[in-house]
Amino acid sequence: MYPSWKKYAAEFIGTLVLVLIGCGSAATAGGELGYLGIAFAFGLSIVAMAYVIGPISGCHINPAVSLAMLIRGRMPRKEFLGYVIAQTAGAVMGSALLSAIIQSTGKPVASLGQNGFGEGYGIGITGTMAFIVEIVLTFIFIYTILGVTSDDANSRVAGLVIGLSLVLVHILGIGLTGTSVNPARSFGPAVLLGGEALAELWVFIVAPLIGAVLAAIAYRRLNVKLES
Amino acid sequence: MYPSWKKYAAEFIGTLVLVLIGCGSAATAGGELGYLGIAFAFGLSIVAMAYVIGPISGCHINPAVSLAMLIRGRMPRKEFLGYVIAQTAGAVMGSALLSAIIQSTGKPVASLGQNGFGEGYGIGITGTMAFIVEIVLTFIFIYTILGVTSDDANSRVAGLVIGLSLVLVHILGIGLTGTSVNPARSFGPAVLLGGEALAELWVFIVAPLIGAVLAAIAYRRLNVKLES
Amino acid sequence: MYPSWKKYAAEFIGTLVLVLIGCGSAATAGGELGYLGIAFAFGLSIVAMAYVIGPISGCHINPAVSLAMLIRGRMPRKEFLGYVIAQTAGAVMGSALLSAIIQSTGKPVASLGQNGFGEGYGIGITGTMAFIVEIVLTFIFIYTILGVTSDDANSRVAGLVIGLSLVLVHILGIGLTGTSVNPARSFGPAVLLGGEALAELWVFIVAPLIGAVLAAIAYRRLNVKLES
Amino acid sequence: MYPSWKKYAAEFIGTLVLVLIGCGSAATAGGELGYLGIAFAFGLSIVAMAYVIGPISGCHINPAVSLAMLIRGRMPRKEFLGYVIAQTAGAVMGSALLSAIIQSTGKPVASLGQNGFGEGYGIGITGTMAFIVEIVLTFIFIYTILGVTSDDANSRVAGLVIGLSLVLVHILGIGLTGTSVNPARSFGPAVLLGGEALAELWVFIVAPLIGAVLAAIAYRRLNVKLES
Repeated sequence: MYPSWKKYAAEFIGTLVLVLIGCGSAATAGGELGYLGIAFAFGLSIVAMAYVIGPISGCHINPAVSLAMLIRGRMPRKEFLGYVIAQTAGAVMGSALLSAIIQSTGKPVASLGQNGFGEGYGIGITGTMAFIVEIVLTFIFIYTILGVTSDDANSRVAGLVIGLSLVLVHILGIGLTGTSVNPARSFGPAVLLGGEALAELWVFIVAPLIGAVLAAIAYRRLNVKLES
Repeated sequence: MYPSWKKYAAEFIGTLVLVLIGCGSAATAGGELGYLGIAFAFGLSIVAMAYVIGPISGCHINPAVSLAMLIRGRMPRKEFLGYVIAQTAGAVMGSALLSAIIQSTGKPVASLGQNGFGEGYGIGITGTMAFIVEIVLTFIFIYTILGVTSDDANSRVAGLVIGLSLVLVHILGIGLTGTSVNPARSFGPAVLLGGEALAELWVFIVAPLIGAVLAAIAYRRLNVKLES
Repeated sequence: MYPSWKKYAAEFIGTLVLVLIGCGSAATAGGELGYLGIAFAFGLSIVAMAYVIGPISGCHINPAVSLAMLIRGRMPRKEFLGYVIAQTAGAVMGSALLSAIIQSTGKPVASLGQNGFGEGYGIGITGTMAFIVEIVLTFIFIYTILGVTSDDANSRVAGLVIGLSLVLVHILGIGLTGTSVNPARSFGPAVLLGGEALAELWVFIVAPLIGAVLAAIAYRRLNVKLES
Repeated sequence: MYPSWKKYAAEFIGTLVLVLIGCGSAATAGGELGYLGIAFAFGLSIVAMAYVIGPISGCHINPAVSLAMLIRGRMPRKEFLGYVIAQTAGAVMGSALLSAIIQSTGKPVASLGQNGFGEGYGIGITGTMAFIVEIVLTFIFIYTILGVTSDDANSRVAGLVIGLSLVLVHILGIGLTGTSVNPARSFGPAVLLGGEALAELWVFIVAPLIGAVLAAIAYRRLNVKLES
């Protein structure tokens, strides 16, 4: 068992890496990478971090994941708030570092990889549909996490599988909402950019949390044998 | 052992995810993703679902896979029809959700990632050749599944390997037939779109089932030791 | 132990798949896939086949790999010729099927994914340099195979690692020689196309075999402990 | 235990492969591969080499990794200098082979995949920011290595995870500094090209070494249980 402060430090580092590399690749090299490259930036952040901070904090680096783990009784209730604060702080720090990198080129900071919807963002789905999409994508991502981490025999491949499932939801989601499935990941860019990103932020906080709750329910109803 | 209704629910969810993300990425972001990105959308759907619904239903999410498992005696005969209905319903629901996403942009639904052949589809192979291609690709995909799942020592990597083999057959098949290898995956878009996709649907039902039978035969003749 | 005819049948199927999907993706969808997509087509062929024909024949699907295994004493001497014939026949059959697919579009068969060099092929390296490049790339590929398959504890990931190392050598090699590292893979397209591909074929037979011998020597000198 | 000369030979080969294929893919086929393809070229070099030279030398193929291992007490102090010399020699040899390949086309050697910054390189970040970026990316890469290699149960997937984490840092870093995180990888091209690459080389030697030290500190402070 690690002390709480180490878990928070681990979550801070992990979320910083996710936002710096995931959002950073979209903001600085989206055209060169294509959607698949951006999707791998997010997903491989999980792969890398899972094997180094996973043993400390579980490598949630996402408040929606922490919520699902809380519901399933897989994390101490008293650490939940600390996790969320650490994740949010890491995301803000990652966005700030990304902003500094872009500013050093002398060009304006037009994008920090923020999420969005409506005309001019991706294919232009509505806000209502963006809300639904984020619920569905978060459900897929977190239902996978709950499944693969429930069997200790999977422990060596779980980091790979979770990372690849984050690649998966990004492949579809980048052109729709940019793919949040993670309130902290959306908070960082929105707070630093303000404007539309900040106004739409609530969608990318509420919808992923709903998706997390639904995933926990589906997991309990379908996967858990004793409660069937 | 899970009750049958949980298996059907699992197959419904899994096939919905496969069609929503696989066909959805082709329909909404094919240009940005390229063939490789679309191939990963289909393949990583398997990777994710294998580790969460695999323990419940085996994660077939494909009537051709269920047929091969039935032939090999690896699923209860009385559940086969339920599997196929659940997979088909999941595919239709995935296509319907995809259609709603596209409609929310105000643009017409030109594509739901349907399969096809002939002039104007991919490189324009004939219907006869499409039939042969689907048999061959399904054979490759299902022969791999039968192999990797036959040895319990592979259980931790089987989901990865099966997903990557679905990436493989898509890499070649997208430009030929769009790659079905899965009657349910073809049924969903065809039923919602109608027209040519519906008229050609039988090819993507019959050919994958033939490929599945041939894979089961090859597996029994080459791989099974006692029957050699 | 499987009877020899099953091993030959397995090598035939595996090499057919490698050539059909690897060379096929280059010939029919090279532009849509990019070099990375083509590289994955070849590499994931190995991943898929390793887990289904690997237990039967070892999944060499490459005469250069069989030669290295022969040198290392890891295959019966009397089966070597049968392996090479089966691999070559599989490659020719894969190329013939690919040719039929392309012909069914009504367009001429301009490419079957053949290897080459000189002006008009990739970046245009010389024949001498192509010879050196093929030795080096085959050395990298087969040295990796000898390493990862020498430790039984790796058996579950060996197919993945070998497939990814074939992706690796293709990433660099596609623009240089198209990447052979496999005499059978080069033989199929060259025999069916004739002309320049056939005239240059000897390079892609001799150089990979030299690379295989060098890999076997390096492995014995560096990796084998008792002979150090 | 392998004799020191075998370890040095292994590091020489591994670093040669990393530079030849990683830098080579950027220099000869960057446009066809895109950033993601180049990132996989570097990362899969690690995957392949980890499973063949890993058992001999640990497959550092990077002086910054060797420094972190030295600090953590995971390599003999008296072999450190030999490792660095072997890695550097391998990188120079890899760059020389790459240079010969390009020269054989008759075109001038404009690029050997060298690192850089400032106007005309990637998005044009400043030298100071390049220094910071290299510290951060190296920290992420080496912190992951220290984590995944600390648990013997990970030994079968460690090569995959480390390779994918090198893909990760390249996805963001290619457009910023070209991604060094490895003094030897930067030394090879710079020494052969001279000019600006050589003048800026110190950044790509010093910053990765600082990143390595910080990763070792973070690992000791956060991950090691006895010293908490």
